[in-house]
Amino acid sequence: MDDPVNAFCKDTRAYLTGAEAGPLSGLSFAAKDIFDVAGEVTGGGNPDWKATHGKADSTSWVVQVLVDAGATMVGKTHTDELTRGLFGENAHYGTPVNPAAPGRVPGGSSSGSAAAVAGGMVDFALGSDTGGSVRTPASFCGIFGIRPTHGRVPIDGMLQSAPDFDTVGWFARDPALLARVGEILLQSRVTTARPGLVLIAEDGFETADAEVVAALRPVAEKVAAMAADTKGLQLSDAGLGAWVRQQSVLAMRQSLASAQEWIDRVDPRFGFEVARRFTDALAISDADVEQARTEREAILQRMAEVLEDGAVVCLPTTPMPAPPAGLPVPERYANRARILALTCIAGTIGAPQISLPLTAVGGLPVGLSLIGAPGTDELLLGFAREIASAL
Amino acid sequence: MDDPVNAFCKDTRAYLTGAEAGPLSGLSFAAKDIFDVAGEVTGGGNPDWKATHGKADSTSWVVQVLVDAGATMVGKTHTDELTRGLFGENAHYGTPVNPAAPGRVPGGSSSGSAAAVAGGMVDFALGSDTGGSVRTPASFCGIFGIRPTHGRVPIDGMLQSAPDFDTVGWFARDPALLARVGEILLQSRVTTARPGLVLIAEDGFETADAEVVAALRPVAEKVAAMAADTKGLQLSDAGLGAWVRQQSVLAMRQSLASAQEWIDRVDPRFGFEVARRFTDALAISDADVEQARTEREAILQRMAEVLEDGAVVCLPTTPMPAPPAGLPVPERYANRARILALTCIAGTIGAPQISLPLTAVGGLPVGLSLIGAPGTDELLLGFAREIASAL
Repeated sequence: MDDPVNAFCKDTRAYLTGAEAGPLSGLSFAAKDIFDVAGEVTGGGNPDWKATHGKADSTSWVVQVLVDAGATMVGKTHTDELTRGLFGENAHYGTPVNPAAPGRVPGGSSSGSAAAVAGGMVDFALGSDTGGSVRTPASFCGIFGIRPTHGRVPIDGMLQSAPDFDTVGWFARDPALLARVGEILLQSRVTTARPGLVLIAEDGFETADAEVVAALRPVAEKVAAMAADTKGLQLSDAGLGAWVRQQSVLAMRQSLASAQEWIDRVDPRFGFEVARRFTDALAISDADVEQARTEREAILQRMAEVLEDGAVVCLPTTPMPAPPAGLPVPERYANRARILALTCIAGTIGAPQISLPLTAVGGLPVGLSLIGAPGTDELLLGFAREIASAL
Repeated sequence: MDDPVNAFCKDTRAYLTGAEAGPLSGLSFAAKDIFDVAGEVTGGGNPDWKATHGKADSTSWVVQVLVDAGATMVGKTHTDELTRGLFGENAHYGTPVNPAAPGRVPGGSSSGSAAAVAGGMVDFALGSDTGGSVRTPASFCGIFGIRPTHGRVPIDGMLQSAPDFDTVGWFARDPALLARVGEILLQSRVTTARPGLVLIAEDGFETADAEVVAALRPVAEKVAAMAADTKGLQLSDAGLGAWVRQQSVLAMRQSLASAQEWIDRVDPRFGFEVARRFTDALAISDADVEQARTEREAILQRMAEVLEDGAVVCLPTTPMPAPPAGLPVPERYANRARILALTCIAGTIGAPQISLPLTAVGGLPVGLSLIGAPGTDELLLGFAREIASAL
């Protein structure tokens, strides 16, 4: 397969012809190399993971249900190592090209899936989102992407990172297709829908670059005007940055737990930034976890109030467009912290979030996001389709 | 070149024919791949280091002086990544075979040099020793090895780790050859010599496995009996384990400083254990360094008293023979801490230490060590030659 954007894993076959007659017949898709395909080794973006694991016995639920619905899987895509990363810079397999912003990162960890969709190589693609791994590349690559409600889409046959936060997500260039794929993965129907209330998160916009605010704020106002009602609000009294730590603590501890036996046994090679994420987690104490749980509880309560009665929160997906590829590690760390201030919200509360490619900053895409209460996936997909038609 | 023990770097040429007439003519040697050879890239045991550095302009001082003395360099040898390791387990290039203990690690970081000497592939080999990287593989592979006085052998053209502790060291199967090579590298003469006093470090033996003590203690007594006088003593009131931390803090901080700009820029791949060594160093504060300096000062004073008037300290080189290859990372960490309790002494005070392969435990070599005051390299080399003839 021709792969001008280095989206696809070269060392695995994963071609599954879609069922002849089905709602997704004639469509092609790719899946992040964390989803099992029977007879293939799931690589997880790390060659030592791949070398120390056997072939999958069966195909992951999400891949199988899409193939059964008629879509043809054409390959597996690159990911940050064990899904640990927001930029798509993989020290082993290189960085997929961002087709919408050459020279910039595609975003990660679902980097290859986003690049394959943005580059037009497939109609849609599967990713996963624990802390922002679908939303970030959707924003950076200028495509639609959704992180569904936690627990809504089965993760059977998916390489897990932090089970309390892991979700299957997907990308498309077209919001109608995003919704059609959603109907299969959610086992549900997406109908025309507009929320009763759109809340513009002022503190979400405050974390973003000035040019991002200038570009996104007018679009957010238009989106809000499509709802029955709208208002602005501060989600967090202490600023969204104060919400990051609890999720980092909880997710990093779980991600380490998922990998630690293997790490201790294999002494695998990681890019330094990824290794540091794991060693940082070694320093997390039980008291840290306890405090994080308390903080999380407060955020759950606050966001339950905010999102009651079908309200939808509108905010930038990322505070900046795609950063240049190859930044020094400390700059990546700083950018990561800023992104997490926005992406931690939905992760913390298990809510669905959809990123819409409605604008750009200096030619670089940056997504506008909608967060709904857990269970409102269909509302978000339906509303996104409406927005794209209207704007 | 045939390389049954995976001692040699396969991706670099480094054959330098020795000068025709010289004190080392007819001898072959290898050098750890941290020593520059003009026209070759020094790899340092890490493929990303190699890929991001250029060819050396000139040949390192130690390699050149040996070639000028008639020895032929036949190749470069594997090392733990950037010399960070005591076991020789390199996640990129594999673990050299320990010819004296198959299935066990060769020791590191001068792993390939030790394996090449123990396997009879070269007459002698160059390594380096910051925290134990010559002494440990000498002990595990059953060969002679010396860490000279800090600053005694020029390190020009050597990849540095922690400059306050880095030394060039060397290995041989034969103590007479170890001394002959020493005459070239020390630019000095090694004459027949016996110390006036051999001090048996009781706390050094207390840190070792019971079987190691049972095997080494009688040999230590024989060695001690060759001196004019002998007695036992405790080096540290608090136990040698209390001496480790200060050296770890100071050396880790320097090793990080040596590599940090490159790490930040390249995001290199490391085996997890090596990455953790660097990330641990990120947590070292200036106050930690200050306290470590104070602790080091006390050790320097104590050891100056112990080693005055040409006294030599005798203790096990390592508390155990070579551990099995492929141990889980936490077990490596535990073994490393035990080894450092013995190897930190000479490193802390910049003293020479020689490891002698005089015995074995269950068929596995374990070295007996002699530490002299800084500047007594010739005394140790001469005495080692005497011991090997006498025992």
